[in-house]
Amino acid sequence: MFLKNAWYVACTPDEIAQKPLGRTICGEAIVFYRAAEGKVAALEDFCPHRGAPLSLGFVRDGTLVCGYHGLEMGCHGKATGMPGQRVNGFPAVRSFPVIERYGFIWVWPGDAAAADPAALHPLPWAEDPSWAYGGGLYHIRCDYRLMIDNLMDLTHETYVHASSIGQKEIDEAPPKTTSEGNEVVTSRFMENIMAPPFWRMALRGNGLADDVPVDRWQICRFSPPSHVMIEVGVAHAGHGGYHAPDEYKASSIVVDFITPETESSIWYFWGMARNFQPDDAALTEQIREGQGKIFSEDLEMLERQQRNLEAWPDRKLLKLNIDAGGVLSRKVIDRLLAAESVEA
Amino acid sequence: MFLKNAWYVACTPDEIAQKPLGRTICGEAIVFYRAAEGKVAALEDFCPHRGAPLSLGFVRDGTLVCGYHGLEMGCHGKATGMPGQRVNGFPAVRSFPVIERYGFIWVWPGDAAAADPAALHPLPWAEDPSWAYGGGLYHIRCDYRLMIDNLMDLTHETYVHASSIGQKEIDEAPPKTTSEGNEVVTSRFMENIMAPPFWRMALRGNGLADDVPVDRWQICRFSPPSHVMIEVGVAHAGHGGYHAPDEYKASSIVVDFITPETESSIWYFWGMARNFQPDDAALTEQIREGQGKIFSEDLEMLERQQRNLEAWPDRKLLKLNIDAGGVLSRKVIDRLLAAESVEA
Amino acid sequence: MFLKNAWYVACTPDEIAQKPLGRTICGEAIVFYRAAEGKVAALEDFCPHRGAPLSLGFVRDGTLVCGYHGLEMGCHGKATGMPGQRVNGFPAVRSFPVIERYGFIWVWPGDAAAADPAALHPLPWAEDPSWAYGGGLYHIRCDYRLMIDNLMDLTHETYVHASSIGQKEIDEAPPKTTSEGNEVVTSRFMENIMAPPFWRMALRGNGLADDVPVDRWQICRFSPPSHVMIEVGVAHAGHGGYHAPDEYKASSIVVDFITPETESSIWYFWGMARNFQPDDAALTEQIREGQGKIFSEDLEMLERQQRNLEAWPDRKLLKLNIDAGGVLSRKVIDRLLAAESVEA
Repeated sequence: MFLKNAWYVACTPDEIAQKPLGRTICGEAIVFYRAAEGKVAALEDFCPHRGAPLSLGFVRDGTLVCGYHGLEMGCHGKATGMPGQRVNGFPAVRSFPVIERYGFIWVWPGDAAAADPAALHPLPWAEDPSWAYGGGLYHIRCDYRLMIDNLMDLTHETYVHASSIGQKEIDEAPPKTTSEGNEVVTSRFMENIMAPPFWRMALRGNGLADDVPVDRWQICRFSPPSHVMIEVGVAHAGHGGYHAPDEYKASSIVVDFITPETESSIWYFWGMARNFQPDDAALTEQIREGQGKIFSEDLEMLERQQRNLEAWPDRKLLKLNIDAGGVLSRKVIDRLLAAESVEA
Repeated sequence: MFLKNAWYVACTPDEIAQKPLGRTICGEAIVFYRAAEGKVAALEDFCPHRGAPLSLGFVRDGTLVCGYHGLEMGCHGKATGMPGQRVNGFPAVRSFPVIERYGFIWVWPGDAAAADPAALHPLPWAEDPSWAYGGGLYHIRCDYRLMIDNLMDLTHETYVHASSIGQKEIDEAPPKTTSEGNEVVTSRFMENIMAPPFWRMALRGNGLADDVPVDRWQICRFSPPSHVMIEVGVAHAGHGGYHAPDEYKASSIVVDFITPETESSIWYFWGMARNFQPDDAALTEQIREGQGKIFSEDLEMLERQQRNLEAWPDRKLLKLNIDAGGVLSRKVIDRLLAAESVEA
Repeated sequence: MFLKNAWYVACTPDEIAQKPLGRTICGEAIVFYRAAEGKVAALEDFCPHRGAPLSLGFVRDGTLVCGYHGLEMGCHGKATGMPGQRVNGFPAVRSFPVIERYGFIWVWPGDAAAADPAALHPLPWAEDPSWAYGGGLYHIRCDYRLMIDNLMDLTHETYVHASSIGQKEIDEAPPKTTSEGNEVVTSRFMENIMAPPFWRMALRGNGLADDVPVDRWQICRFSPPSHVMIEVGVAHAGHGGYHAPDEYKASSIVVDFITPETESSIWYFWGMARNFQPDDAALTEQIREGQGKIFSEDLEMLERQQRNLEAWPDRKLLKLNIDAGGVLSRKVIDRLLAAESVEA
């Protein structure tokens, strides 16, 4: 069960730079490609001639050409030509609303008539030159909600990421969770602690001492359909923590777009946006590698948790205070799912 | 749905030269081996003793011996011996009619009583010393009819095989399709064009200039259960094309035996028979390698098409003029399937 | 269908030396670990917090800690702690009776109240310093009863293990099978034959001539739930065979613990116990390697037999005299299964 009337990150521009990309999103097999004037298009990945996947074809002058027998598709899903054929009567395939913005290609897998560009999740940092971004993509075999739970309860850092961003003080500091409209926020503040390895690297990268006590914060924000933005950072202790002046802190936004592939698998777009040394490409790559390694530590846990839940479908899971972020996020999703089913 | 009362290519002699071969054909798990006097035999791949696959056994003096406990099978499916046992009362397993001819081993997976050696597809070139043959085998996860469609509509060469045998002129020349009895013929003639790379190689191999215009032809012949023989060739333009004297042309027969393994997978025996330089083994190998590479380009397309059709089972595919060969071939199959079900 | 109220070998101590072990036994997903005072514990591999597999966690001071959010499990399946949480009301998970003895860790996957330590299969040689043991573990995709059949009918050695322990004389010597209570014994004696390669090695390892005729024996003992101990050996011919004095023979016990994972897969613990040169670790390793190689020859046969039986579920298999060991063993299992279902 996932929301269909919503904007999901489908891919990044580099993935369609050379050829069309076939990717299943929310159960829909879709081909993404760059059509006329560089505009991104998304169609059902099914040629109306003989059912070949259009993603095995190629783009010629902005037109998607089927790689089997040369049928040419327009970006709205109607065939526009085929050697030796009249294509007027050919059945159309679905086209999906797409937007390219903020360095991502977004797709609306549901009712195209309801697609509202204004509903796109705003990412102001992505258009601000004082910020830099680096990220990656993992395919994980789990329900997308398990990943939301994961990101809305960073207690797990103490255990899953013990050698990088985890530290004992995290699970000793109770989080505070609030919900307003469709957004859920869960935050945790730790004062006067030593920074863990990842943050020492960030402090140094930011020209700050890494061997003095810091205040650390984590503010996780869920918004539908399944995005989680996390403000994270450390500041030299006693300067105001989250509100400390920039010269005392290293901070960034952990960016998580969780795009369901099927009911039990996801495309997980992860990354980090930072507003220090934005032009240092080597630092961007260093952070990206470190984060990629850290986030890969979650994969086995999530996939095995998924299999356990499939094996024991009737067991109720606990909903502790640390789980409140995930629990409230699921409530938002359930409410929107109910609304979507009324509309349909 | 495939015809069972028919001769299918099961394997080539080299595949049973060293040991028995287990292969599923039309849903029947069969062991092939060379029995007494070098005669090929085919039995259910199931030992009546404990169900072990007989194909894991070995042949001793023309008798198939089960590799688990030594039961000896006769070529008609009755146990003929077992150390320390009286085997008279042992249940028999099915034996399948087999014929070794034309360089292939053919099996009749249906009603043995109906097996008619005269129904074997004649391959006169295979017994004519002025012809040479080279070929190979691919396992492909698709319905056998998708491969028939593929071979009865060579329009796809322009797209799938663009760098070898494909050329724009193919999909610009409309094919002509006819049906007579159980045979379907679809043909395409292109005049005064430049030969594509594969045919330039063949012209040179045949001692002919490769840089002059040619006439090119493709005559695809389907015959049940699922054989497609394709006469292909080029002749220096203006000498009669298909009917040109031998000294102006390079031609051959593309040989395709499509043997269903299951409803959604096939054993695809492909090859090429030619009547020039038949004793040039190096040329045979060169052509075989080239053809193997070309035919491997179809695999992903066919397997992905199969998965698409499984995902969208209710979609009707188009039946254009270029599809007429496949459409008529399927009609022949459907008519024979109906007849087979009446007999059964 | 397997017995649940029985002791099965679950693992060996080295498998839980570094971290917890997750293993499915008789359909139960279980985590094994070494708890307080070195005592082995076995719990359902499911954290009551969010369903993560406990086997991805770690042991701290004898407590199993969930690797996701730090829940601490006691060895009886009740949570004993979690940072920042009161765990009194947390639901418990099942704990399974376990015994560590004879170099193995045994688990009782059924009704814990019925677990009787006295029912553990006695292995006197394992606690006798004049014996040595070496063994290994294979995962095989077959019904556990196919492996019992395999071991209770060593006729297969002639075919499957032709180059090591097999010889023609085996399948020429009819076995004798008896049953008493829940134990089934099938034995075979061969007199005045030449030893096969494996036994020649053992004779030499035992300081005996390997080029003289021997008497050879195989005494296979099945006991529930699925253990097969096989006394095997050779003695220089004419000295009493099985009863010959030690100076004329090389003998050992083939040890087979067949632990069902699912209805169609097993954990197969194999090994060999010997009472000659028990302190020769190099000999132990040499025998272990040889035996491992021999037993690996059964894997393909068993897995393919399993698939054949699944494909032909209605075929009755033969029950020859050589199959009597397996047939009677299955009768014991069926009788105990019926009793278990009455109790339940």
